[in-house]
Amino acid sequence: MTGTIHGVGLGPGDPELMSVKAARLVREAKVIAYFRKPGRPGVARTIVEGLLAPGCTEIALEYPVTTEIPADDPAYNDALRPFYEKAADDLLAQAKSGHDVVVLCEGDPFLYGSFMHLYSRLRERVRVEVVPGIPGMSGCWTAAGEPMTYGDDVLVVLPATLEEGTLISQIEIADALVVMKLGRNLGKVRRALEIAGFLERALYVEYGTMAAQTVMPLSDKDDDEAPYFSMVLVPGQGRRP
Amino acid sequence: MTGTIHGVGLGPGDPELMSVKAARLVREAKVIAYFRKPGRPGVARTIVEGLLAPGCTEIALEYPVTTEIPADDPAYNDALRPFYEKAADDLLAQAKSGHDVVVLCEGDPFLYGSFMHLYSRLRERVRVEVVPGIPGMSGCWTAAGEPMTYGDDVLVVLPATLEEGTLISQIEIADALVVMKLGRNLGKVRRALEIAGFLERALYVEYGTMAAQTVMPLSDKDDDEAPYFSMVLVPGQGRRP
Repeated sequence: MTGTIHGVGLGPGDPELMSVKAARLVREAKVIAYFRKPGRPGVARTIVEGLLAPGCTEIALEYPVTTEIPADDPAYNDALRPFYEKAADDLLAQAKSGHDVVVLCEGDPFLYGSFMHLYSRLRERVRVEVVPGIPGMSGCWTAAGEPMTYGDDVLVVLPATLEEGTLISQIEIADALVVMKLGRNLGKVRRALEIAGFLERALYVEYGTMAAQTVMPLSDKDDDEAPYFSMVLVPGQGRRP
Repeated sequence: MTGTIHGVGLGPGDPELMSVKAARLVREAKVIAYFRKPGRPGVARTIVEGLLAPGCTEIALEYPVTTEIPADDPAYNDALRPFYEKAADDLLAQAKSGHDVVVLCEGDPFLYGSFMHLYSRLRERVRVEVVPGIPGMSGCWTAAGEPMTYGDDVLVVLPATLEEGTLISQIEIADALVVMKLGRNLGKVRRALEIAGFLERALYVEYGTMAAQTVMPLSDKDDDEAPYFSMVLVPGQGRRP
């Protein structure tokens, strides 16, 4: 009998923030798979440390490229396409051998997740089930202790990889704002927030809900170094009874 | 010793989608509180059915008004303000008597949650801790089986309560879209999507992850009746390796 591929959201980092369903699937898994950068343990794999059953088979899917090539360079997709093709084929082979596979996903699988590139390749070929997770951004605004959206507030979620002019025009029409994928883009994001008049309200959150969690006003941050798992938040100011 | 007020996100509806931490707090709670409309069981309370310890004290916080007064009418805030004041005082009195209180919240407490109006009134007066939850929108896009944001996609989350012109201009600049708080606003949302050229891509999701879950293309929906727990989604179409 063909197995099922489960895309399982693990939430923002704290293992207790994975869902009851995710924890059950992880504990019962005989085969897991997860993305990671070569030479790193992988954030998703780190979240489930200590939960796996003895003898669980692990499939590490190692990105051939992460930030070495700009994502808008055609070479980026050219490098990733065969990687996702092979990863999908490998998981399909596991399923065809009768194994269920649990794919570990940070945050929510369908919100900027690498799993989506397996899902689109597998959904017509095998049973694929998805378990949503608490998005990284929810972990960050909870860590910051700041409610994000009140009343009629419009929430805009922006990848920091966009060009500065686009960032500015998007920020200007937002009530509440999340800027993801900071990495080397923090300087650009800071300028865009300043031009749009949002800099004073902006919070910087690093590793929200994880042991290394840091929260500060962005204006207090002296450098533009930001790990991939960091965000800028601007809470909304809408209607409050 | 003064107790702690916990604002606990329960996720989108399926009890297995509450976090391990939320489930632990709910099972161990001696005092819970939850919002509901008078005469209804309350969505948050329904999610935890069967999980509460025997003898758990329940505090139902009943909205004096929900949709009978438009939210932009000053009478709306005038009716809700004393309600939130009294609710906050009641929970504070519980904490001062030494009880921890678990406030049950649908979805994520800090994303358009009623709990935020207690949080702002209590955070300086007592220890308040918040557990994030899987937002209703994550439950809906997972139910729809559609990844939401790829690559540089901008995600815009809009309350349907906004006026039609604002909806149109916000929709036009989005890559991926979530429209919440549909209720009696679905006809207006449908017109705005059509004018912005998004109607064909729009999905309608009702009670995502719950027993009564319904997913359909919005253009297949013949009426403009929508319960409060329904959303319109437009998945993004960004970069896909």
